[in-house]
Amino acid sequence: MDHQDDTCIFCDILAGRSPAEVLYENAHALAILDIRPIHHGHSLVIPKVHCRDFLDVPPDYLPGLMEATQTVAAATVRTLSLQGFNVFSNNGRVAGQSVFHFHFHVTPRYHDDQIRFELTLKRYTDGQMQDLGRRIRQNLPALSR
Amino acid sequence: MDHQDDTCIFCDILAGRSPAEVLYENAHALAILDIRPIHHGHSLVIPKVHCRDFLDVPPDYLPGLMEATQTVAAATVRTLSLQGFNVFSNNGRVAGQSVFHFHFHVTPRYHDDQIRFELTLKRYTDGQMQDLGRRIRQNLPALSR
Repeated sequence: MDHQDDTCIFCDILAGRSPAEVLYENAHALAILDIRPIHHGHSLVIPKVHCRDFLDVPPDYLPGLMEATQTVAAATVRTLSLQGFNVFSNNGRVAGQSVFHFHFHVTPRYHDDQIRFELTLKRYTDGQMQDLGRRIRQNLPALSR
Repeated sequence: MDHQDDTCIFCDILAGRSPAEVLYENAHALAILDIRPIHHGHSLVIPKVHCRDFLDVPPDYLPGLMEATQTVAAATVRTLSLQGFNVFSNNGRVAGQSVFHFHFHVTPRYHDDQIRFELTLKRYTDGQMQDLGRRIRQNLPALSR
């Protein structure tokens, strides 16, 4: 394994120092079952290098991370005959992150399963969205379009 | 653009038939601002081919999809000086999907922003997690580990 953090539970699992129910791995990612699942079959897909959040994942790990996520999601859907699932990541404490080694959650979903994303959608006033778009693009590589 | 669905709003945007505030694009993905955002700056990252959900995204589109998602998330964090953000996808109506062309949401988050993921974590009884792990692995390529 690549760079590790000695205080990180996911680095311990990646190094084989802590147990986990491993579902799948490739060169850049490991998928395990979450021990406190939203629903049974809820898995975590973890890059094989210590990185704090999504922005910190080395770009060459992203394709392997996605391959593992799609592969495990497909197998979970097949195994549990799912009608739906979420893929999500929480980045930063204000976004609900609790283990500071990046991970994608893959969670089974069911009709009327009492799980809801509680929020109020906002609106943009005239020109506000275009202005924000302009500001974000200034922090991006030039748009080829 | 690749295969399109004539009734799909995201295919219309990809084909330039409907307007959108475009933030970024690469060969395989387009990022736009969501017009009904969870918070201002909430963006959607869309593969440039019609695909219903995450399992339906052609594997060769996944690296470009992730590159666009990471790039746009980084620019949004910088532009809005964010402490956190979520990346998520809803797959299937029971999981909250409303537009049936796959997309990743990238949503700014703030301290005390009244947005919560409402749920009760489950437990596994003895052996139940290992049994489910075995069943999921049976639907997976052989584990190299």
